[in-house]
Amino acid sequence: MKMEIVANDTLLTGALEDIQRDVDAGFDSFLPVPQDQRARLVEAMRYAAIGGGKRLRPLLVTATASLFKVPRATALRAGIAVEAIHVYSLIHDDLPCMDDDALRHGKPTLHKAFDEATAVLAGDSLHALAFEILASPNMTGDPFTRAELVAALAGASGHEGMAGGQMMDMVAEQEGEAFDLHAITRLQQLKTGALLGASVELGAILGRVPPEGRAHLHGYARDIGLAFQIADDLLDLEGDEEKAGKALRKDEEAGKATFLSLLGPDRARDQAQMLVDQAISHLNAYGEEADLLRAIARYIVERDR
Amino acid sequence: MKMEIVANDTLLTGALEDIQRDVDAGFDSFLPVPQDQRARLVEAMRYAAIGGGKRLRPLLVTATASLFKVPRATALRAGIAVEAIHVYSLIHDDLPCMDDDALRHGKPTLHKAFDEATAVLAGDSLHALAFEILASPNMTGDPFTRAELVAALAGASGHEGMAGGQMMDMVAEQEGEAFDLHAITRLQQLKTGALLGASVELGAILGRVPPEGRAHLHGYARDIGLAFQIADDLLDLEGDEEKAGKALRKDEEAGKATFLSLLGPDRARDQAQMLVDQAISHLNAYGEEADLLRAIARYIVERDR
Repeated sequence: MKMEIVANDTLLTGALEDIQRDVDAGFDSFLPVPQDQRARLVEAMRYAAIGGGKRLRPLLVTATASLFKVPRATALRAGIAVEAIHVYSLIHDDLPCMDDDALRHGKPTLHKAFDEATAVLAGDSLHALAFEILASPNMTGDPFTRAELVAALAGASGHEGMAGGQMMDMVAEQEGEAFDLHAITRLQQLKTGALLGASVELGAILGRVPPEGRAHLHGYARDIGLAFQIADDLLDLEGDEEKAGKALRKDEEAGKATFLSLLGPDRARDQAQMLVDQAISHLNAYGEEADLLRAIARYIVERDR
Repeated sequence: MKMEIVANDTLLTGALEDIQRDVDAGFDSFLPVPQDQRARLVEAMRYAAIGGGKRLRPLLVTATASLFKVPRATALRAGIAVEAIHVYSLIHDDLPCMDDDALRHGKPTLHKAFDEATAVLAGDSLHALAFEILASPNMTGDPFTRAELVAALAGASGHEGMAGGQMMDMVAEQEGEAFDLHAITRLQQLKTGALLGASVELGAILGRVPPEGRAHLHGYARDIGLAFQIADDLLDLEGDEEKAGKALRKDEEAGKATFLSLLGPDRARDQAQMLVDQAISHLNAYGEEADLLRAIARYIVERDR
């Protein structure tokens, strides 16, 4: 048992190192700096996209796709597209009119390092890049798969998904609306869950798993999505700002309803662990080829940033 | 000759009325207001997207697609996707950190009517909606066409297209760089030309015109794109703010290099007319089925808003 955990730790550590290196290299190759006044825009995109972040979403894409023996290079491209959406959302979230954050991944946020207008444009450009990557014939030879990838990612990131969740969060904060556990769960399923779910979905699409065959993977994604958010809430309370590379304890200061404020730290921790166990049980149909997905589920609540 | 001009005027007037009505109806059906806290986001998207604008880009999509007998409902969906990109770009352009405009289509800009954070999110959500529409199986049964539509629109709107052009424009304004006619042409080919070009391109893609058969249409799009921008410069100088529904004469106040500042009004007008004639000559291979595209080219320099 001990041996197995160690093996899985090694599996995860290696996988995280690989994905971080490969996502950086991918953004580097997608974003050559042009020799004209657009250089500033591309430099801003590179500043935000390269060298930072755990790359959990690309890792979920590649780990899921590997269940179905999808070539890693193909899954990696799709993973970079999801990460481009994630990075654009962080850039826009950090803006003064949104969360007004000064630090991200341990360095100044994009609008601090460049300026607000450049940050808006760089976010928009990474947003477009995501769909350019997925729709390109370089993605996969099968146009049906490409169209399905685009539809899944656009649906998860737009007003019915991530952006909708962000609006619910803003309304909750501005109007001090009484959010109960049900409402917080719904909010977080959209705000962070939709894109984590899309990461697993993209892996399944690349694996040509038909929609009716994706129920276990959807269950896994739903559970790790909520566990991720509870762990984030706990890190916001108990974490180390230097390791996190961003300002913490903003939720508490804002008096915002979170899983943590509703459950308290002990029940929140139990709930996260229960969700991880449940997520892993959704993978029972798979053998050791799903060990990385299992390790990711555990990592989601055990990480320190 | 007189009769023919009148006929084409009627053709254009009817086509503009139709497209304005149909684009409004399309956004209305794509954006039902949900019964939760996302309502505010969708209301903001509707505020910006419904009831305003000439809808020139959707008209270019449908007019081009009609050359190849594409069903109007199909072309209209693609047109709404392009318009969603156009509307998102206007929302973000109007933000205080960008052009800081208070009026758009004769009503308060989105960040004035709602707030800045909602405007950022609504823009982002319309951005995602565009690709959701194009990638949906409801768009067209042919996935290759769907993937090609997404690739064309994402390429035209991202850092190598529209967003790149906006960055060039910002650099030109902030650093007062000496822009000559060549540089202004390049800037405008990206900033406004890329999306007008994509509109024609999407029509050709729907018509299953192979890339090598699109040269005349590309020429048409390039020429009307530049003519459009020169006409916009002239309207900015000579237009009626009430008709325009937005603040004018900002370029002159900012001392910005434009076609107009470089050419003067008389040569600018001649140049725009020459481009329209040239655009129309690119359509010589087509018969009266291209009359609407010809009328659009003339309208682009004759419009009063």
